[in-house]
Amino acid sequence: MSDLIHGLTAVEASELRRRSAAAKDVAYCPYSNFRVGCALLCEDGTWVIGANIENASYPVTICAERTALVKAITEGKKKFRAIGVSTDITPPASPCGMCRQFIREFADLGTPIFMYDKDGEYVVRTLEQLLPMSFGPENLHPPSKLPGHSGNK
Amino acid sequence: MSDLIHGLTAVEASELRRRSAAAKDVAYCPYSNFRVGCALLCEDGTWVIGANIENASYPVTICAERTALVKAITEGKKKFRAIGVSTDITPPASPCGMCRQFIREFADLGTPIFMYDKDGEYVVRTLEQLLPMSFGPENLHPPSKLPGHSGNK
Amino acid sequence: MSDLIHGLTAVEASELRRRSAAAKDVAYCPYSNFRVGCALLCEDGTWVIGANIENASYPVTICAERTALVKAITEGKKKFRAIGVSTDITPPASPCGMCRQFIREFADLGTPIFMYDKDGEYVVRTLEQLLPMSFGPENLHPPSKLPGHSGNK
Amino acid sequence: MSDLIHGLTAVEASELRRRSAAAKDVAYCPYSNFRVGCALLCEDGTWVIGANIENASYPVTICAERTALVKAITEGKKKFRAIGVSTDITPPASPCGMCRQFIREFADLGTPIFMYDKDGEYVVRTLEQLLPMSFGPENLHPPSKLPGHSGNK
Repeated sequence: MSDLIHGLTAVEASELRRRSAAAKDVAYCPYSNFRVGCALLCEDGTWVIGANIENASYPVTICAERTALVKAITEGKKKFRAIGVSTDITPPASPCGMCRQFIREFADLGTPIFMYDKDGEYVVRTLEQLLPMSFGPENLHPPSKLPGHSGNK
Repeated sequence: MSDLIHGLTAVEASELRRRSAAAKDVAYCPYSNFRVGCALLCEDGTWVIGANIENASYPVTICAERTALVKAITEGKKKFRAIGVSTDITPPASPCGMCRQFIREFADLGTPIFMYDKDGEYVVRTLEQLLPMSFGPENLHPPSKLPGHSGNK
Repeated sequence: MSDLIHGLTAVEASELRRRSAAAKDVAYCPYSNFRVGCALLCEDGTWVIGANIENASYPVTICAERTALVKAITEGKKKFRAIGVSTDITPPASPCGMCRQFIREFADLGTPIFMYDKDGEYVVRTLEQLLPMSFGPENLHPPSKLPGHSGNK
Repeated sequence: MSDLIHGLTAVEASELRRRSAAAKDVAYCPYSNFRVGCALLCEDGTWVIGANIENASYPVTICAERTALVKAITEGKKKFRAIGVSTDITPPASPCGMCRQFIREFADLGTPIFMYDKDGEYVVRTLEQLLPMSFGPENLHPPSKLPGHSGNK
């Protein structure tokens, strides 16, 4: 349809923005004071949110995108129609490389990632645009040896 | 009461074991084939589970304990009465150091961590026993500067 | 000059390949059996190598690129003319997203990253090509507040 | 000998303190402003130092202990007589759980870890004391299947 936004209806796109921004409220970020919220639109139409959870030992921190994804995956949702990421800055922040890698394991390369600034303005890129020539499951092992992995990437 | 098991009733202890073991079913571990399940008994009496979610880039993996904790924390549950970890080996595996550190940010030092083997037999240790002399929020910053952190540790 | 390869002389390009491949010999990768070697050509003309160092707890693993970079940085070498990454597969593997993020903190966006396959054949991309729209120091803090950071990125 | 300090001569103990403290000078920590230096006394009598190298994406940070260890390991030094960690606070900070886990892969459980405060005063604990009931290589795979791993732990 001509009125789809990267595969999302106007209502879905609006919800993605709203839920990504709202997710910032559950961030635990006393060290960076940099709140990040993430919302996933799962293939089944349900939503999952996440936020960054920091640690006194910085490398032990888990970002918003990875928090949302592990929630979804352990709830049996492994396919996603869109990913939203919201911060309090402008222009919008993009997912860090570690999160792009984490997303890569599960999302199709064409999955749109909406990056929202503090006012809800966004830039959108596909996973493939954010992580070109990516290293994935099929590089490490023959896809046939990966149980439960569809090897689409 | 004399019949509490590290603060848990017999029913709670049984549930912790059952849920930790069941959580293994949602693990995504095609690289290690080493399933880990985790269950949290939150202070409010609710349960949260997690499992390990691996990545083709091994360091991007998130363990079961951290998966369960980010789920709980982003659902507003930041205090825990007990943590259960279950694997398919015997004797039971313990949480890795990275997870002990992640737990440290939120759980009281006296929180019991039940480690279950493949048959449900367990060993239990407190967080302080598993991560003595730990590095925590109060080492990095004065606790008073940590918003939303109760500084109990 | 017409005979430079992404800024490297033929001798330097040859050395980058040779050192990246040789670095695989010092990998510690009993879990993946996937050896990765990395070589850095520093701005001062010296070389630093790294390899992947794995851990029984997979997320505690450190990749070859990050190993090489922390070696260089703690030896006072913070600017790089080229990065080489070598594996035992073909086509060549690319750095994972976590390593692209680590490189981002120090290398100019135009830094060439040479990816070698098992036979020494390569594909080359700049850091910016591998991590477009990257999240970096200037997103988190005003560059002026970052001590010792030149903020070129 | 009665005058050994956890297996170190007075000169070695003094050097461990001096090198751990000096290593703080090469830290890259614009986000935490929390410098950490690490020194390793290798079995062959040589020294390797490391410092924390942070990243705008906090979880991509590598701590001082892990920096020192990957340097040593890629230089062929896999056995250690002592580890020193120095910070600018008092009482001394201990290695985070992630670093304890990283050390665990290579060091004997009895390896002394000296933790120095800002004035060089120290507390010392063995690896086993800092990471009791640790998860290690032998939990994941039969040691016999780990190439190049001596399985002493």
